Amino acid sequence: MNTTSQTARRIVVVGGVAGGMSFAARARRLDESAVITVLDRGRHVSFANCGLPYHLDGEIAEESALTLRTPESFRPSGIDVRTGHDVVALDPHARTVTVEISGDGGPRTETIAYDELLLSPGGRTIVPDVEGLAAGFASGRVRTLRTVDDATGLRTDILAARASTAVVVGAGFIGLEAAEALAAAGLEVSLIQRSGQILSPLERELAHLVAEEAARLGIRVLTGRQLRAYRPGADGGDVVVLDDGTELGADATVIATGITPDTEVFAAAGVECDAGAILTDEHGRTSVEHVWAVGDATARPTAVTGATRSTALAGPANRAGRLVADAMLGENARPLPPAQGTAVVRVGSLTAAMTGANRAELDAAGTEYQTLHLHPLQHAGYFPGAEQIHLVVHIGPDGRLLGAQAVGRDGVDKRIDVIATAMRGGLDVADLIDLDLAYAPPYGSAKDPVNFAGMLGENVTSGLVRLWHAAEAADLDGAVVLDVRNPDEVATGTLPGALLIPVNELRDRLGEVFAAAGNDGARPVRILCASGVRSAAAYRIIVQAAAAEGIRLDVATLSGGMLTLRAWYGDDVRNLLAVPEGAAA
Amino acid sequence: MNTTSQTARRIVVVGGVAGGMSFAARARRLDESAVITVLDRGRHVSFANCGLPYHLDGEIAEESALTLRTPESFRPSGIDVRTGHDVVALDPHARTVTVEISGDGGPRTETIAYDELLLSPGGRTIVPDVEGLAAGFASGRVRTLRTVDDATGLRTDILAARASTAVVVGAGFIGLEAAEALAAAGLEVSLIQRSGQILSPLERELAHLVAEEAARLGIRVLTGRQLRAYRPGADGGDVVVLDDGTELGADATVIATGITPDTEVFAAAGVECDAGAILTDEHGRTSVEHVWAVGDATARPTAVTGATRSTALAGPANRAGRLVADAMLGENARPLPPAQGTAVVRVGSLTAAMTGANRAELDAAGTEYQTLHLHPLQHAGYFPGAEQIHLVVHIGPDGRLLGAQAVGRDGVDKRIDVIATAMRGGLDVADLIDLDLAYAPPYGSAKDPVNFAGMLGENVTSGLVRLWHAAEAADLDGAVVLDVRNPDEVATGTLPGALLIPVNELRDRLGEVFAAAGNDGARPVRILCASGVRSAAAYRIIVQAAAAEGIRLDVATLSGGMLTLRAWYGDDVRNLLAVPEGAAA
Repeated sequence: MNTTSQTARRIVVVGGVAGGMSFAARARRLDESAVITVLDRGRHVSFANCGLPYHLDGEIAEESALTLRTPESFRPSGIDVRTGHDVVALDPHARTVTVEISGDGGPRTETIAYDELLLSPGGRTIVPDVEGLAAGFASGRVRTLRTVDDATGLRTDILAARASTAVVVGAGFIGLEAAEALAAAGLEVSLIQRSGQILSPLERELAHLVAEEAARLGIRVLTGRQLRAYRPGADGGDVVVLDDGTELGADATVIATGITPDTEVFAAAGVECDAGAILTDEHGRTSVEHVWAVGDATARPTAVTGATRSTALAGPANRAGRLVADAMLGENARPLPPAQGTAVVRVGSLTAAMTGANRAELDAAGTEYQTLHLHPLQHAGYFPGAEQIHLVVHIGPDGRLLGAQAVGRDGVDKRIDVIATAMRGGLDVADLIDLDLAYAPPYGSAKDPVNFAGMLGENVTSGLVRLWHAAEAADLDGAVVLDVRNPDEVATGTLPGALLIPVNELRDRLGEVFAAAGNDGARPVRILCASGVRSAAAYRIIVQAAAAEGIRLDVATLSGGMLTLRAWYGDDVRNLLAVPEGAAA
Repeated sequence: MNTTSQTARRIVVVGGVAGGMSFAARARRLDESAVITVLDRGRHVSFANCGLPYHLDGEIAEESALTLRTPESFRPSGIDVRTGHDVVALDPHARTVTVEISGDGGPRTETIAYDELLLSPGGRTIVPDVEGLAAGFASGRVRTLRTVDDATGLRTDILAARASTAVVVGAGFIGLEAAEALAAAGLEVSLIQRSGQILSPLERELAHLVAEEAARLGIRVLTGRQLRAYRPGADGGDVVVLDDGTELGADATVIATGITPDTEVFAAAGVECDAGAILTDEHGRTSVEHVWAVGDATARPTAVTGATRSTALAGPANRAGRLVADAMLGENARPLPPAQGTAVVRVGSLTAAMTGANRAELDAAGTEYQTLHLHPLQHAGYFPGAEQIHLVVHIGPDGRLLGAQAVGRDGVDKRIDVIATAMRGGLDVADLIDLDLAYAPPYGSAKDPVNFAGMLGENVTSGLVRLWHAAEAADLDGAVVLDVRNPDEVATGTLPGALLIPVNELRDRLGEVFAAAGNDGARPVRILCASGVRSAAAYRIIVQAAAAEGIRLDVATLSGGMLTLRAWYGDDVRNLLAVPEGAAA
């Protein structure tokens, strides 16, 4: 381990949050003699950026909880942390950065030399180019939510009752967290999302569940809409105007429309970027010698599709900071893992979590996949508090785990973490069958939701079960729909013209199925039930009986059942379903 | 897929809980034509055996929640479930079992033929051979907790106020769960454990935390004690007498002293067993043709040490039932995974969980290992409700993950499941550094407890940090103890004679350390702090400074710090610690 050196290394870190500070701490452990300087343009370093939304309603009550460390607190470690230091130029040949210094000593410029430079500049919010918005920012009634000052300013306005209406622009993680906190603080909140659904990384059949929860929290969710103008009032009473003409009261507006890497200075100095994000090798090296980079401003290949993209998440940034320090100062450094994209958000009493690739990424990469839907209980059904987890798993034809997402009230983060770990370990979907997970009635089931996903996945990849999907329900073109639920369930609505045979009667009524399909099996049979369990059993009964009688049939079972179908179509499901005559609800 | 046959296969299943019923359900999916018969000696099949303790205090309120399925409910699937059928003989040559039938039709005997036989007999409680206990069983005031009738009988006694004192014999999972429920129901509960600690699979430094919680729940925990006699009272008022003469009021007594495989009948017929447990291959085949076995009554090699043992847990049994059905009736069946031993128990507000091998198993197998102790928070420290997870991880010299255990109030099961999955995926401890786990402040930290375990593990295996352990504290023989905590922490007690230098002053006071160690480093330096984080930083400072000055030192940092040391010694820690003169508490 090369931990000392004759001449002390000068290490300069740009950006004092997440990746930058994690790097600095590890660098100090590896090299006591290095001269480590951290430059940040803001007032705070190492602050709780992921905690900012929770301060708005006082769930995190104290500002001091957000400012985890002061610059002074790094002094005993010999790390020189300088706030109010904005890096405005990089000279890779001279190995210097130029900083503009605000705060004490007034605005001035300084040039700082480095032996090694670590860039962790993060991103800045993409502010929509909308008439009047600049005036809103100037008045302090429009804010991003990127700094401690953003959060405390908004909190102060709320406590002083200067805001009773709020507009949050952008329904990503931060936008949703902010909208919930503002609603919890008693504000009338509108949440604006340009695309057709909230939480765009989440699959639509799960995003719908989250949108319902947001509505339950009192948030007015407006998707497919964007800002047309911001109209400051004379004395407060500002108004946000949407592209469809809707006008929303906006005492406070939060712009959470995503971030763009804050890298112009470094790109101008020759650091290679892609769509603004710094490209690095697997140890954080940029295209420029002695310049390294981590965090939101970097782009790396993703684990599943290999597509290069940036990941604006605190976890990967923090862990990368440590690994890049190892590469710079240690021996046998581990490579940065490809980006896996694990993420989680709390919305009301729901948790939504994801790992790996989603449908959009798989489609963009041309990856072949199938999608499993399950709705297992998070713990033993006989134990109080059992709740469904709505689970979506994408698998390759060979059973490779490509991605997983889940929404539910309890145990969601655990299952996504387990699947994320399985993916990292190279396990395939069938390996999930017998993962040995901790079971006692308060924690899981003897067959855990993850085990169930494995069982269904193996059934599908082995051909034991064949799925059809909610998306096909709008155009089933001549198929026999077989609903194997009980009459009381059917009475809540089914697909028009469905053949109704409860699964427990199916063995005695197979003739009806074969007759409906036509003697030569001319019409495909599309089975459905509530969650997909009984229809899979029905599938096995039908295909075995058909084989025994020499009948060729095209049969499939609805992935995730009516639960998934309803969530897929959302409010539009009313146009799709019918209540059979004589059905008693 | 061979799912139909010309002549219907006769499949007989012995034991209608967990493995047996899981097998039967899968067998039906694979083979519609098979004649499937399930024989169980009890009154219920497919009941919630893991739920029984929670019925005692009404947390699971209704008996009906425990009896998940009736025999009749399997009829539509064509599975013939027969309760009150006790298998008393097996003839593998004739392929028949003989059953003694109780219930309707009175006691009689029948012989049933099979083509394939699945044994899932489970275990029965090992009842200590103690004077008077048989009378207690006869009176109904002594019970095991293996059947629905056991649980409902005890619940009825409690509701009828026939019991105000209880003795639970055996402090394993079921014993602890039962003791907690009885205490919650208002009984005065004593919990007797023959060995020196409760929950014997749990490491002592974690078991101590659980014992404290049990005491907080009002349970009188008596370890190192066993039953000498049971003395029935004239009309109730029974007394349990311990080997040290202690007499305990015992209106109700629960024997939870572990189980032994219930396999005599099958062993007598030539099925090969080891210590009573049926040996199977990786597909559940026994030594006898056409006879298969799953569940608590079987023994299989364990994943970490390879030692053969039985695992009396519902999860592996349920999953094995499915895999053995695949092997019997399907194609390309997956092998049963080696036993990993993941388990979890709730005790009051604590969760204790484990996976892989513990110290005792590693020692017995002669496996070389090191142990990591960590006490990270389960989620971001600045978010309300942050609680420590006490984590123990055993690793091999090469970083192989051998086992992990944890105790805490929240997030414990998740971390053990993640590590269990990592072990299954063949990841080593350093791979845990950058596992991409779901992070938002309510769920975790940017560096998750599992990531921290990876970081510490890599530091240890790479030689960047060297640990010493609580066990050594009783005999440090000439070492310099360096306590790097702050004075207010030191005032709560430290090891006698410790050199006191807060970590933030260490760089300026290294001379004191070197002087104490002797100029030639004659005395080893043993660093400690509260949890092991600051002492690891101190370790890095000292070894780098010593190297820079050419001083050879034997330095180590206390694994898990004072938190682990206190838990290791339990109440005896008072004899070990001193409060330095002048220290202000």
